[in-house]
Amino acid sequence: MSTTFIPYFRFKVRLVLATVMLTSCLSARLSPAQEQPSRPNVVLFFADDLGYADLHCFGGESMVTPNLDKLASGGVRMTSFYASQAVCSASRCSLLTGCYNVRVGILGALGPNSTTCLNPEEETIAEVLKPLGYKTAIFGKWHLGDRGDGLPTRHGFDRYHGLPYSNDMWPYHPTSKAFPALPLFEDETIINDNVTAEDQEHLTEWATEHALEFIDSAGDDPFFLYMPFSMPHVPLYVSKRYNGKTGRGLFHDVIAEIDWSVGEVVAKLNEKGLSENTLVIFTSDNGPWLSYGDHAGSAQPLREGKGTAWEGGQREPTIFNWPGRIPAGTTCDEVAGTIDVLPTIAAVAGAALPEKKIDGKNIWPLLSGADGAVSPHQAYYYYWSRGLHAVRSGKWKLHFPHSYRSLKGEPGKGGQPGPYIQKTCGLELYNLDEDISESQDVAAEHPEVVAMLTRLADIKRWELGDALKKQTGHEVRPAGKLPKVKKQ
Amino acid sequence: MSTTFIPYFRFKVRLVLATVMLTSCLSARLSPAQEQPSRPNVVLFFADDLGYADLHCFGGESMVTPNLDKLASGGVRMTSFYASQAVCSASRCSLLTGCYNVRVGILGALGPNSTTCLNPEEETIAEVLKPLGYKTAIFGKWHLGDRGDGLPTRHGFDRYHGLPYSNDMWPYHPTSKAFPALPLFEDETIINDNVTAEDQEHLTEWATEHALEFIDSAGDDPFFLYMPFSMPHVPLYVSKRYNGKTGRGLFHDVIAEIDWSVGEVVAKLNEKGLSENTLVIFTSDNGPWLSYGDHAGSAQPLREGKGTAWEGGQREPTIFNWPGRIPAGTTCDEVAGTIDVLPTIAAVAGAALPEKKIDGKNIWPLLSGADGAVSPHQAYYYYWSRGLHAVRSGKWKLHFPHSYRSLKGEPGKGGQPGPYIQKTCGLELYNLDEDISESQDVAAEHPEVVAMLTRLADIKRWELGDALKKQTGHEVRPAGKLPKVKKQ
Repeated sequence: MSTTFIPYFRFKVRLVLATVMLTSCLSARLSPAQEQPSRPNVVLFFADDLGYADLHCFGGESMVTPNLDKLASGGVRMTSFYASQAVCSASRCSLLTGCYNVRVGILGALGPNSTTCLNPEEETIAEVLKPLGYKTAIFGKWHLGDRGDGLPTRHGFDRYHGLPYSNDMWPYHPTSKAFPALPLFEDETIINDNVTAEDQEHLTEWATEHALEFIDSAGDDPFFLYMPFSMPHVPLYVSKRYNGKTGRGLFHDVIAEIDWSVGEVVAKLNEKGLSENTLVIFTSDNGPWLSYGDHAGSAQPLREGKGTAWEGGQREPTIFNWPGRIPAGTTCDEVAGTIDVLPTIAAVAGAALPEKKIDGKNIWPLLSGADGAVSPHQAYYYYWSRGLHAVRSGKWKLHFPHSYRSLKGEPGKGGQPGPYIQKTCGLELYNLDEDISESQDVAAEHPEVVAMLTRLADIKRWELGDALKKQTGHEVRPAGKLPKVKKQ
Repeated sequence: MSTTFIPYFRFKVRLVLATVMLTSCLSARLSPAQEQPSRPNVVLFFADDLGYADLHCFGGESMVTPNLDKLASGGVRMTSFYASQAVCSASRCSLLTGCYNVRVGILGALGPNSTTCLNPEEETIAEVLKPLGYKTAIFGKWHLGDRGDGLPTRHGFDRYHGLPYSNDMWPYHPTSKAFPALPLFEDETIINDNVTAEDQEHLTEWATEHALEFIDSAGDDPFFLYMPFSMPHVPLYVSKRYNGKTGRGLFHDVIAEIDWSVGEVVAKLNEKGLSENTLVIFTSDNGPWLSYGDHAGSAQPLREGKGTAWEGGQREPTIFNWPGRIPAGTTCDEVAGTIDVLPTIAAVAGAALPEKKIDGKNIWPLLSGADGAVSPHQAYYYYWSRGLHAVRSGKWKLHFPHSYRSLKGEPGKGGQPGPYIQKTCGLELYNLDEDISESQDVAAEHPEVVAMLTRLADIKRWELGDALKKQTGHEVRPAGKLPKVKKQ
């Protein structure tokens, strides 16, 4: 009996069991997207500050990402896939709730001891899947609340190991002062109350080890594994095994270790015969933190990076892979984003959508290459805090007047950031089909396009703005609140 | 003690009671739109085949509509308010469910003994309001199922009196042959199994009498009164009191009687001191049936009428009135439609929206004249059966190639229809701000507008089309089914 036979056999048993359960419990919801295999496992990799060009398969020629490249060639590359806001917590709440971050009230990045958290009344992907019997885990960076009701175990995750916020929110980072010691969580317990530089070298390894154990322990239950890597957010750390591995510098080594992690998880899925019943997703929270120079990635040919509504801030290299369900080696240029992840997972799993209104759409037709499938978004909206900075419909992107940060001369080196300056953007229109770098403002030549996009933006501002909130109370919801922490 | 004092006193008692109930039951939902008065009564008048110019207050200079004109001058005139499809049953299902008719599977007009009905799994306005203690009634024409689970009493209405479908679906209409005898319902009982021409003279009176009794009998409970007049659908009938009343012909007399009916109901509200706690709405299911000539209304200056996606088919003269809550004498040109009625009523009543996805939006900000309020619709879609014939965004309306009916020469007279011919429409763009009559196709001059509207339409086709239905099973739902009726 070969070693490959056992997983195959177990896989078939799983399938039969799953089919029986589906037929008995969910027959009313049956549709081609869910027919078989049912209740797929979902693995969601989420990098931190990864640029559009930071994978080899997205044009990063110097990058060493063989496992991610293989994931892409076995699935679909999404080339117009957006984070909802180009900063950490805001982006993460959208991924997990299917909402523009302004709808759920998470703005910017939460600091340590923030009294704001993801509202427990919002439903996360984990909570959407739990009623179907999913086991759920997050291994990596959470950043939606660092205590009490803010923790992931209060938001549908059975298991948690990782940092509660960014790895630069600690005393030793060059520009971040007066932070408390960085904690490491295991579920709701702080198992290390002072994560050091040496500890950070293990962050990617730890997440990976926990992931492999979690998959092993899931048994016959379907699972949702959320892997929000702390890297390549600065300060960059890599394990000793990967230090110098690529010969192309620390940033390349860090990405190579993330690629290793993805490879390990995929290998585990293969080993257990689960690949054909597992949807694997890879994307990132926002673009590269360009002021860090050689310690940051690249969004080329996109303009700017993290912290801006230019394409480099929000368009992310994104892969969906599901052998047998998503056609291998395909590319999809239609507009989609992290807000679509929850409703898409809900659709393929046959789960109910959250009761509260969400913004995302089921993009399964795009992923599965359905004939003639188009983006479900009439327009996509680029927010910064509560401000609507830009809107895209089809090939057209209109920026509204706003200020944004841009490099002032040379970026930093060796982990030290270079200076930013504030620049201003007017009412500027770009044709992304012909000008992906947003270099030629064509607003003057296309006043009607400007007018139509302005109209779309006006409507969205009303829908997600304070004005409508005051009028109806229906659409915009507050963030969660945590009690203040006494200073020690 | 004056006669006006008693209603005023009773009104104050109602208000206090309502406020107490709201505070105890619904404090979590409080918002300015619902604060006080709470649980308003809702009266929804719905004419049949009424043209855009068939009210004096909408430019119909010869029309005799003093009560409707007063309703308009005391509230807001909506000048870009649309039925979802220019035919009876399709339009009515949208009004009652807040969905484009294609989403809920009701296409065209249901004939007698149709095996299709409004799906009992859809939630109507009546069902949305029932959990809040509303009494509900429909007096007039239903047309969403003529027996069993299709009847309005199975869709949230406590009381019903009226015809189950159009008043021309009977044996004696000039062009409609082989119909069964026309029944008249009281709740679920057929109280007259052969409505005659003489009977039809009383249709508007009967609905009005039932409405007045219903308001009287509501006691302290809030109520939802739905008044879908059978008129001015052909064959036109009017009571003896109104026959010849205007001296301008039968059509004018019929409209004058509808106006009388509205006036009676409003007077009853005033008499009972309920006006300031009642939202009154008036609109129609589709435009005029132009082939009937002097027995049809007018949509001037709009193009075409009933049965087409031109403005005359779907844009309806619409009034919202609520003394003290909706500013008197205002006009709103923003795009809205019958699909918005359910979510708007739900918002002002503090009711939960249906669990299933709906298309309509809460337009309370528009109605209440909120500063800077804009249409919540990025685009509005004109359907015919399952075909998307046109899309409007802002001032632009794009027609997709389709055929439509148009008068062939002179229309009919005296209740006899004139002939239609089929015309074809290409990809045609109209600027409704400058050309409300859709007379100048400007597609060639504005290719980018055409491209953007085409894109919006492509997305909606996917969302509401069979393609996505097959992919996800989420978005489009089937109509209800009734057992076949054996021929006798």
